[in-house]
Amino acid sequence: MNFSSKTIENAVNALSGFPGVGKRSALRMVMHLLKRPTEEAENLSKVINKLKTELTQCTICCNISDTNVCSICNSVNRNRSLVCVVEDMMDVMAIENTGQYNGMYHVLGGLISPIDGVGPEELNIRELIARMENEPPEEVIIALNANIEGDTTAFYLARKMQAFPIKISTISKGISVGSELEYTDEITLGRSLTARVPYSI
Amino acid sequence: MNFSSKTIENAVNALSGFPGVGKRSALRMVMHLLKRPTEEAENLSKVINKLKTELTQCTICCNISDTNVCSICNSVNRNRSLVCVVEDMMDVMAIENTGQYNGMYHVLGGLISPIDGVGPEELNIRELIARMENEPPEEVIIALNANIEGDTTAFYLARKMQAFPIKISTISKGISVGSELEYTDEITLGRSLTARVPYSI
Repeated sequence: MNFSSKTIENAVNALSGFPGVGKRSALRMVMHLLKRPTEEAENLSKVINKLKTELTQCTICCNISDTNVCSICNSVNRNRSLVCVVEDMMDVMAIENTGQYNGMYHVLGGLISPIDGVGPEELNIRELIARMENEPPEEVIIALNANIEGDTTAFYLARKMQAFPIKISTISKGISVGSELEYTDEITLGRSLTARVPYSI
Repeated sequence: MNFSSKTIENAVNALSGFPGVGKRSALRMVMHLLKRPTEEAENLSKVINKLKTELTQCTICCNISDTNVCSICNSVNRNRSLVCVVEDMMDVMAIENTGQYNGMYHVLGGLISPIDGVGPEELNIRELIARMENEPPEEVIIALNANIEGDTTAFYLARKMQAFPIKISTISKGISVGSELEYTDEITLGRSLTARVPYSI
């Protein structure tokens, strides 16, 4: 692209670093900002800066947090005997949005993936084990992606936590609610057959 | 969405102000920034701020520019007897990318659109007329969108410039290069029939 302005070119280059944002979309974003009031651009600039200066990691669950102990770990209304192990903050949000869970979390910060050079040491597993030792919950729910990295990490965690007298469970896998058998992929369907549960009336 | 962090919520809200960026995409952007080095977020924050502090309007063509006179108006290699009237900077870039034009530009900053409350006074038409008076070009090419707003603005401009001994032209409309008649919309096809040109061998 042929930019007449260096300032615009720099902004386009910076914005097109986002996943799924190409040069064209970035330029559209820049044009949008140019048309909006100055305060809006200033605010955007400020909040982006704050992402790096004001965020910290919760000392208990390792989730991204504004404070040393996040709002979930700090809450008195949550069931402390239940810890749900997830990959990242997005998963915490996804589970919170279900409204079905009232326990604590532990955020690993990733999944074991040798191809990407991510081993167990890169994840917040040491912190999880420390929690098991200091304030052991009754149950740990492993809620990781249903793919190779998720399964590998779940297996590693389960082995690690075997030493503790804690119930270890994992979220159920099967066909999505509302989906049709005909259109479900064969691996999911096969798994949901193998993992069939008693029909409760 | 249920954000555990106010800082992240603010960033998501600010980013989802962009056209075509919803809360989910904004959150993905935030997560991306969190994973990237601090310098990258700082740079993004800085370039966004610069959009509002360092950009100005070229005093000749009214295009967005880093300097008082933009690089195109400042160039000695461009044909000053030709002025192409466009809506905005994106159109300047689009025409520059064709590599087929070596004249000057005049950027209106919008199109006449009574529905959106944009009248001729809101556009850089006064500046265009001043250019006609001070340094009259040989030809003005009206290159506006082929829609109602574009046509209205073109008609208004043509009437305004009638008073000057200047050739006024507009870009040709017709079927796109490479397209098939079968799939061309009937209005375009009808226009391209009416506006047929002699076949040159």
